[in-house]
Amino acid sequence: MKNKGILIIVSGFSGAGKGTVMKKLMSDYDNYALSISATTRGPRTGEQDGREYFFKTVEDFEAMIANDQLIEYAQYVGNYYGTPKAYVEQMLNDGKDVILEIEMQGAMKVKEKMPETLLVFVTPPTAAELKNRLVGRGTEDMATIAARLKRASEETVYMDKYDYLLINDDLDECVKELHGIIQAEHSKVSRNINKINFFREDAKIFSEGE
Amino acid sequence: MKNKGILIIVSGFSGAGKGTVMKKLMSDYDNYALSISATTRGPRTGEQDGREYFFKTVEDFEAMIANDQLIEYAQYVGNYYGTPKAYVEQMLNDGKDVILEIEMQGAMKVKEKMPETLLVFVTPPTAAELKNRLVGRGTEDMATIAARLKRASEETVYMDKYDYLLINDDLDECVKELHGIIQAEHSKVSRNINKINFFREDAKIFSEGE
Repeated sequence: MKNKGILIIVSGFSGAGKGTVMKKLMSDYDNYALSISATTRGPRTGEQDGREYFFKTVEDFEAMIANDQLIEYAQYVGNYYGTPKAYVEQMLNDGKDVILEIEMQGAMKVKEKMPETLLVFVTPPTAAELKNRLVGRGTEDMATIAARLKRASEETVYMDKYDYLLINDDLDECVKELHGIIQAEHSKVSRNINKINFFREDAKIFSEGE
Repeated sequence: MKNKGILIIVSGFSGAGKGTVMKKLMSDYDNYALSISATTRGPRTGEQDGREYFFKTVEDFEAMIANDQLIEYAQYVGNYYGTPKAYVEQMLNDGKDVILEIEMQGAMKVKEKMPETLLVFVTPPTAAELKNRLVGRGTEDMATIAARLKRASEETVYMDKYDYLLINDDLDECVKELHGIIQAEHSKVSRNINKINFFREDAKIFSEGE
């Protein structure tokens, strides 16, 4: 009996290192698929439909909303972004574990719709370290960094709404830990009810014929 | 902040290979402690108080029951057997993950008293394989094997009351999987509320002084 894949949402503060963790997870292990978003923004040079994004017209995107074909969606700087249900379902049925990197409000909505989703919250070990990383990147001015930190502080209310807390201290350790969490999740009783029922049926023969 | 250890109950059918799995887990990894039972049966040659068992008089054992000093206990062939709470608590506070190998009714009682206990159910991949192993051991007559199989068939009702289903097909894989399950459990949000609250307090500084 082939296990269905698991949908995993990874969220975390800006500066927590989610992107790096995801990239290493995908390159170190075989069984993962990244969810591909649909968007109404135009493709940039080098972007390919079905690789970076599924590129959609506004009409098509709104039809997807109307037909409940998106797991979640949001608007950002005048464009729609969303997660197509069909693609994710197909990967899950193929036995792939699908990773969806989205922000926290979206994560809560998905969990409501699909309670079997695994929620992982990535955080640096301390708030001071979060600040260090944002400053250390050297890509943003102090006002932008302050805004990101303020947002992180507000986002801490979401931390205990997740299933797992993944502390990104050492990258290698963190990726191994995430992989371990997902592997363990496959052994959850709630994800193995078919196997249990099969075993029960099978074992009935031992109670018969007395 | 040092994490408290996790209490893990391992149960499974007679013939599932629990003993072998436990032995290898203890020898392959450092962070585990096996719970030591208290009993009223006398020590056998070579057995040492506080190593194989805590040896108790009936009076002492019944006083432990009366004073709620046992996590669970049962009577078996005229003797008491039980799990002393103080020893387990001490190991957990030292940060050790404590493994308790007990049968299913006892496991349910412990989970009721201590809901943060992790329940792992060990099973061979199939009912046929369970029979093969019991027959293959060659240590019991067919009537005893039939009785064990009948009991296993009845015990399947407990399978979905556990947290994790551990399929013991390949020993090495099985031990790694069990270790992985326990490791992942340490990252559960519910086991990291202190860290989350600490981070929240710490991050407050980013919302202040606007």
